[in-house]
Amino acid sequence: MDGNTLCENMMNTPPAQIGAPLGDVETPALILDLAAYEWNVSKLQGFADEVGILLRPHAKTHKCAAIALHQIEMGAVGVCCQKTSEAAALIEAGVTDVFITNEVVGEPKIERLAKLVDRATLRVCVDNPENVTALSRAMESHGRQLDVMVEVDVGAQRCGVATAEEALSLARQVLVAPGLRFNGLQAYHGGAQHIREFRERRAAARSAIAKTAAVRDLLDAEGIECEIVSGGGTGSYPFEAASGVYTELQCGSYIFMDVDYARNLEADGRAISEFKHSLFVCTTVMSKTRPDTVVVDAGLKAVSIDSGMPDVYGSAGLSYTGASDEHGKLAVTQPDTPVTLGDKLMLVPGHCDPTVNLYDWLVGYRDGRVAALWPVTARGCLL
Amino acid sequence: MDGNTLCENMMNTPPAQIGAPLGDVETPALILDLAAYEWNVSKLQGFADEVGILLRPHAKTHKCAAIALHQIEMGAVGVCCQKTSEAAALIEAGVTDVFITNEVVGEPKIERLAKLVDRATLRVCVDNPENVTALSRAMESHGRQLDVMVEVDVGAQRCGVATAEEALSLARQVLVAPGLRFNGLQAYHGGAQHIREFRERRAAARSAIAKTAAVRDLLDAEGIECEIVSGGGTGSYPFEAASGVYTELQCGSYIFMDVDYARNLEADGRAISEFKHSLFVCTTVMSKTRPDTVVVDAGLKAVSIDSGMPDVYGSAGLSYTGASDEHGKLAVTQPDTPVTLGDKLMLVPGHCDPTVNLYDWLVGYRDGRVAALWPVTARGCLL
Repeated sequence: MDGNTLCENMMNTPPAQIGAPLGDVETPALILDLAAYEWNVSKLQGFADEVGILLRPHAKTHKCAAIALHQIEMGAVGVCCQKTSEAAALIEAGVTDVFITNEVVGEPKIERLAKLVDRATLRVCVDNPENVTALSRAMESHGRQLDVMVEVDVGAQRCGVATAEEALSLARQVLVAPGLRFNGLQAYHGGAQHIREFRERRAAARSAIAKTAAVRDLLDAEGIECEIVSGGGTGSYPFEAASGVYTELQCGSYIFMDVDYARNLEADGRAISEFKHSLFVCTTVMSKTRPDTVVVDAGLKAVSIDSGMPDVYGSAGLSYTGASDEHGKLAVTQPDTPVTLGDKLMLVPGHCDPTVNLYDWLVGYRDGRVAALWPVTARGCLL
Repeated sequence: MDGNTLCENMMNTPPAQIGAPLGDVETPALILDLAAYEWNVSKLQGFADEVGILLRPHAKTHKCAAIALHQIEMGAVGVCCQKTSEAAALIEAGVTDVFITNEVVGEPKIERLAKLVDRATLRVCVDNPENVTALSRAMESHGRQLDVMVEVDVGAQRCGVATAEEALSLARQVLVAPGLRFNGLQAYHGGAQHIREFRERRAAARSAIAKTAAVRDLLDAEGIECEIVSGGGTGSYPFEAASGVYTELQCGSYIFMDVDYARNLEADGRAISEFKHSLFVCTTVMSKTRPDTVVVDAGLKAVSIDSGMPDVYGSAGLSYTGASDEHGKLAVTQPDTPVTLGDKLMLVPGHCDPTVNLYDWLVGYRDGRVAALWPVTARGCLL
């Protein structure tokens, strides 16, 4: 039973055909309302253009080369990735400017990075002196130059150096390290994105901005220019854009909008509405043996519940209450809700990024018909 | 930007090579301790053989043809699947006996089923008269015969008819439906599997068994024989096995054991220990800028947290406290815990089934070296 079992193409069959009515899509399937998606892309790009800040959308949200190339075509300077293998998959598919907004640790990954440097404009983050040394050695031995950003922890308490002094020290190390070029600062506050109340969210973002400015100013005083200061997400980007500190935004989820982001509130207390829900999981009612419950074919392997249950789109009388591996349980909250076996429902995922990663195909529709079948190019790219 | 973009093989590169030391595996990776896995397989098969009940392990847990074929080689009568496309992938890889323990609803899926019938012994569940009619029509038009089980809701309140009378009515419909053969009853109580306290778990299982017996007896009294009564999971199988009602067990998780199952208690109040943890997510410490926190490269896309956070295996001083898309945050709970950048840690997933579905490869090791690279054959098979 041991031994290497090779296998053929393991990508699954698309759940739809181009031109088919939306109702013919097999389920569960990942569905994209192309008009809403394009509206979102134009909206944020238009904002960035108007303010005069670069937009580098995060591709960890979609992992899809077709979307990355479209974002760039619409004006984005490039995309962000989170993993080296994710960057490699998108570069393979034609994306030419990728910022890995993450530390790359371990020899095999750094070797992979070295091989990608000549194929695209490539940038990574560092927050550790040993890692700087490892990156430098690998790039030098391959005769390559890698762009490097010092990551600063501006509130997420995850990756990134804690103090301006550590950032300065690391920037100095990068500046003299063979094979590395110092680009600037990565300063993303993940935790600020989902603070519901506007003023609290703004306060968290402003705190991150103040810390970033202090680090930039210290480096500047020491004669080190931060050409790029990168950060901001769908929940906080207006603040980074207005700061005068950041030079590029990294928003990802704005193209899809999930249930979690839609819970954020505007300054006037209303739910934010600047972007539209464009991403759905299409699911079928596969069992209905009780008057108060409906079972659909989208469970944990079809929709991520880490940020809460999905919403049933456009159906006030149904509520997704529980997910098991392959089943979703919906409560019928209004007894007269018309729902029968075989009905198709659209779910808005609680969290778009890990949901997209469960699928091989993104099914785009327009005017009720399937208009695009896009591979989720970097699906499962974990390395 | 619209249009069909085809793509090449999207399966990711294996994170290891056969023969390499375990420490060389790239991360995050799904790792299988082959000795522990084989011990688990033998343990439950030995139990089933001794009791004289058939074992049909659930392949939704592993989705891996190499494991399915090994389970059958060790004595299993076949495997269970949850999706038609999952069954198709395993049949394609050589598995010849599959029970889809689920309703198959909608014309494209039923058509796919009809094409599989001649390639393997195949069985599905029904809980709805219209679905019986649809299955019958499709099988008749293809000149095929499909084995059908009536699913009874024995406590999970998900799929399955609610009463013995409905089961009888559905069995009668199946018996006279062209193209269908009535096999017996599907009676699985998912909710009973994770009841921690032994007597409560036993009570839930016994309630399910009593209901199943009542349905079987009613059908028997009406002259309808239930050749097969199928159910039981890793948390409840001793009760179904001892019942005299069930003819086959459907345990899945026993081969891996996850954190959630390991929280179940034995009759004496101790945590169950009958099966060993064999499945791990190998992860690397990729950032450590604070004394009390470690960041690893396995987040939501590498380990499912729907049933709780993963455990850090063999490291009492570290606790996995939070997952974001590509990062796991670990608290250092004992200040002297030796942990540095680049260290590899083994995580025991909170829930094995959806975690396995995130990976293309299962890396088997023995005596500290990689001994098997198994494709997760039915990864992402949602249809």
